Amino acid sequence: MNIEQFPSKLLENAVTEFARLPGIGKKTALRLVLHLLKRDQDEVHRFGEAITRLKDEVMHCLLCHNISDTDTCNICSNSSRDHGLVCVVENIRDVMSIENTQQYKGVYHVLGGIISPMDGIGPSDLEIESLLKRVEEGSIREVIFALSTTMEGDSTNFYLYKKLSNNNIRITTLARGVSVGDELEFTDELTLGRSIVNRLLYENIIS
Amino acid sequence: MNIEQFPSKLLENAVTEFARLPGIGKKTALRLVLHLLKRDQDEVHRFGEAITRLKDEVMHCLLCHNISDTDTCNICSNSSRDHGLVCVVENIRDVMSIENTQQYKGVYHVLGGIISPMDGIGPSDLEIESLLKRVEEGSIREVIFALSTTMEGDSTNFYLYKKLSNNNIRITTLARGVSVGDELEFTDELTLGRSIVNRLLYENIIS
Repeated sequence: MNIEQFPSKLLENAVTEFARLPGIGKKTALRLVLHLLKRDQDEVHRFGEAITRLKDEVMHCLLCHNISDTDTCNICSNSSRDHGLVCVVENIRDVMSIENTQQYKGVYHVLGGIISPMDGIGPSDLEIESLLKRVEEGSIREVIFALSTTMEGDSTNFYLYKKLSNNNIRITTLARGVSVGDELEFTDELTLGRSIVNRLLYENIIS
Repeated sequence: MNIEQFPSKLLENAVTEFARLPGIGKKTALRLVLHLLKRDQDEVHRFGEAITRLKDEVMHCLLCHNISDTDTCNICSNSSRDHGLVCVVENIRDVMSIENTQQYKGVYHVLGGIISPMDGIGPSDLEIESLLKRVEEGSIREVIFALSTTMEGDSTNFYLYKKLSNNNIRITTLARGVSVGDELEFTDELTLGRSIVNRLLYENIIS
């Protein structure tokens, strides 16, 4: 079915907006919008507000750049976590994945991506400077690389290693229990949990 | 991955709202929300507004109950359409499906569902009274049943036929080119277009 003729401009707008989301085609968008239309006005307003409020009010933690409702995120402001141990991840989803394993008691650093020349993403587009600064302040004793085991992830690891290795810290990476070529977020909790417990010295991996 | 620990209440709210939509799980919801978060504030506002405005401002055509931006929909207010020919459909999606075939020049009547005792939907929950009124006004010479060829669709057809057959009108149904047991909206345009051109006298189907 091609959807060309909408009976209402308002309907068409809502469908077009939904269809901009990744993985949502015009037909699915129409189904979702018609579903919303059947719900109570209150519920629909709550839906719209949840999204606009998120965009307007959400903050990024000043330390680790994770999403947060406050200046400093729950993890960075938790004094029972090990602040000498920093896990470097690509994005917020990866923080959530690792938190769900309940195996990690350190803090994080969210790069906001990985180095990918094909997509035009270089080191300056990522939160690398702030990571170097955190390490230079001297209270961090170990940095764990927890990036996807893809070529881009490996390049980013290597770039970070070069930048960090002259500091007197341990640089580790997730145990290669994570299958090579896999995206981090699709790894099951058990494997991911083990791989962070059995992390390896980065030096041993590249030599 | 179980998503239990959200770094932000705002994020959690937005994900929960998205995950209420049919066919959207928690993980997909998170992906969509994080995608929105990366977009411009303007775009996100437009998304939220498109949905709340649709719910607040959209109308239903007073004649055919199709979705509309005005009291009377584009189709009902179009004087070049054949107002003596009324196609009875289950919902708005079906109007759009038939319009896309570009084979039909009459008007519509949207029931808003079909009779389904299992789901507790009886004749009084549907726009049947208003259909009978339209027919009684006397300017309609043919009613086409274009409901899904399921048991519920057939029962609804039969119920409507009993109510309408004492009026002096032709009562037709879509040609059975539509495979029996199929939902109308999944039928390809060609089949649907042919089936509305070659519509059959309802009397011949039930005898």
